[in-house]
Amino acid sequence: MTRPLAVIHCGQLVTVAGGQLSIIADGTLLVRDGVIEAVGRDVAIGPEYEIFDAAGRVVMPGFVDAHTHPVFGGNRVDEFEMRARGAAYEEIAAAGGGIRSTVRKTRAASEDELVAAAQRRAQWFLRTGTTTIEAKSGYGLTLEDECKMLRAIKRLNEAGPLQYVPTFLGAHEIPDDFRASPDSYVDLIVNEMLPAVKGLAEFCDVFCEPKIFNVERAERILRAAREQGLGLRVHAEQLSRSGAAEMAARAGAKTADHLEQIDDAGIDALAAGHVQPVLLPASVYTLGSKRFAPARKMIEAGLPVVLATDFNPGSSPTPSMPFVLSLAATQMHMTPAEAILAATIHAAQSLNRAGRIGSLETGKQADFVVHDCEDYRELAYWTGIEPVFATFVRGERVYQR
Amino acid sequence: MTRPLAVIHCGQLVTVAGGQLSIIADGTLLVRDGVIEAVGRDVAIGPEYEIFDAAGRVVMPGFVDAHTHPVFGGNRVDEFEMRARGAAYEEIAAAGGGIRSTVRKTRAASEDELVAAAQRRAQWFLRTGTTTIEAKSGYGLTLEDECKMLRAIKRLNEAGPLQYVPTFLGAHEIPDDFRASPDSYVDLIVNEMLPAVKGLAEFCDVFCEPKIFNVERAERILRAAREQGLGLRVHAEQLSRSGAAEMAARAGAKTADHLEQIDDAGIDALAAGHVQPVLLPASVYTLGSKRFAPARKMIEAGLPVVLATDFNPGSSPTPSMPFVLSLAATQMHMTPAEAILAATIHAAQSLNRAGRIGSLETGKQADFVVHDCEDYRELAYWTGIEPVFATFVRGERVYQR
Repeated sequence: MTRPLAVIHCGQLVTVAGGQLSIIADGTLLVRDGVIEAVGRDVAIGPEYEIFDAAGRVVMPGFVDAHTHPVFGGNRVDEFEMRARGAAYEEIAAAGGGIRSTVRKTRAASEDELVAAAQRRAQWFLRTGTTTIEAKSGYGLTLEDECKMLRAIKRLNEAGPLQYVPTFLGAHEIPDDFRASPDSYVDLIVNEMLPAVKGLAEFCDVFCEPKIFNVERAERILRAAREQGLGLRVHAEQLSRSGAAEMAARAGAKTADHLEQIDDAGIDALAAGHVQPVLLPASVYTLGSKRFAPARKMIEAGLPVVLATDFNPGSSPTPSMPFVLSLAATQMHMTPAEAILAATIHAAQSLNRAGRIGSLETGKQADFVVHDCEDYRELAYWTGIEPVFATFVRGERVYQR
Repeated sequence: MTRPLAVIHCGQLVTVAGGQLSIIADGTLLVRDGVIEAVGRDVAIGPEYEIFDAAGRVVMPGFVDAHTHPVFGGNRVDEFEMRARGAAYEEIAAAGGGIRSTVRKTRAASEDELVAAAQRRAQWFLRTGTTTIEAKSGYGLTLEDECKMLRAIKRLNEAGPLQYVPTFLGAHEIPDDFRASPDSYVDLIVNEMLPAVKGLAEFCDVFCEPKIFNVERAERILRAAREQGLGLRVHAEQLSRSGAAEMAARAGAKTADHLEQIDDAGIDALAAGHVQPVLLPASVYTLGSKRFAPARKMIEAGLPVVLATDFNPGSSPTPSMPFVLSLAATQMHMTPAEAILAATIHAAQSLNRAGRIGSLETGKQADFVVHDCEDYRELAYWTGIEPVFATFVRGERVYQR
């Protein structure tokens, strides 16, 4: 039996209790059997407890990264270099770049290879303070390869310590052999893939854009997914204002993600439909765009904004939530406090896990991080370094610098 | 006596020899007495060598960061949060923010306190692959406090392992008690500070802006510094196009730094005057500006562009050269190869150290980094993580993950 754990001298114990930042100065966190037993300032510690002295450091919930594409073959550093040189989208596409290049490499990889590559990258998440990630398929685009990706995610989650929430994203791109008849690919998704991924996926996501899965196709897929019992997420309003936000609300989606092109009417639709916005500033950064999603308007509309990395080999090769906090503070006028709520409890809500993770409260899973700083705002401030001193999942130390 | 060292199985040994990227596949690096003894593919290794197996990783020169402000009291996270909230410059100034807030805290700190705080931050540089930094004074703004800062830098350099090149920046801001008579402060710099910093500083820098040290004041200070035998650097064309580039060329400056507002005529002046541009994209990023310096035009004009962090507690709280490489590739259309030259050999040139550091060539100091990736371009690609596996200064391993 593992000894219970007392984390003492937390200079700032940032609990995020009740959906607020809630800082306990010089706090103590007690953990028993992987669950938070007590959180507070004056907490009695029995002799059976193992002690972890945070020595004045900041202790926070592990980040919950609610939008990632962590399973893929190869990387896209060639395309990254071409874009740096100023190559146009057409040139990159002609050279075989874009999502389809990762599709080719992912199809060519075995399930074991995909798991091994993702396991190495899982360390990056733990090193930067993330303990749970939403993980999408979407680089297979055949029944077999989409299932291969979702089985890989299942194995990664079972192996731990990083925790995965699986999302089926068969509707990520129209595969080459369906270019002439995209609706036949929608048929394939609805009739064959969705029934097959039952038990492998918790959510279904669609990349809703006029030239790919337009609003009608996206809505058809999402309604079919809902009938299968899947939660719904949508890549929405990224490249154009398409009406995906309103569609997400109609379909009962849990989240609408990206939203760089959304307007006030779209924000109103999200609010009315209780759809959470998931903002992905690292992809805006990586693509060299200047147009970040209007985070402040969404916060002012009362929306529980989520921040995520969008980790993927093309448009967002960063696994770092601290970097996303920095982007939120410097490019989107979110305060560090707002950004941390967006990266913890709001993200957990969007994954139907707010009762279990995303804050440090008695009875919740003991997923927490000791950051090597004295003030939680430093996480968004010092940029380009890994601020984590130690990461814990279910009360077990899974990473220490 | 230390044993000689053989670093074997360098998947890419990026030598930067001759000012080109020059990659040796599966290379070997031999080090003896802190100096590079051999670099190549088929290198004989005697039995006396200690072996470091890079296991296919990228091995490169340590980054040379040619523009930093690493010695300061306190931090400016309060101001960072205010700016995130959308506070205007005036509001921040009224709350005591800006450079002057760091001046107050730096004056209040003892030399020992400044050294201790900077020593902790020195780890961040080593962790992200930097082995030499240029280090400016400029938060003292009195004879006594400027000398205190430069003595702190001297002690930091002597303590190592991070190496410092000291720059006197008394002309960083007009101190409060000289607001009414800026020229009297210039008198103080020229008549008292410059003679006093002899032996403590290698370079003199001036923040040249119309409202602070205008072109005339800046030129007066730089000419006096030159007479003292100091090399010259200039904060130029950051907030306005002031003619600082032309002045830097006239005064014989080694570098002109920032340059976000420069135009073609200014670039021509730098080229004609053999002034190296030092570009600081992390401060553009931190301030939420969209206007990066025109790097491509400078490269096309044949200028040996330098990239640096501008590490400081206000406008650039990042010590990470990998993050600067990412900014260069995603925001400035520099290729990873161009960015690496700018962060190594070009930077060493700008500090009069190209004969000693900045590349891996026989006879040079053995400052090198083993990066945990297979392709040097990944340093600019994967963002927000620390890519370093191990850092060596003068052949000694000073950091390992």
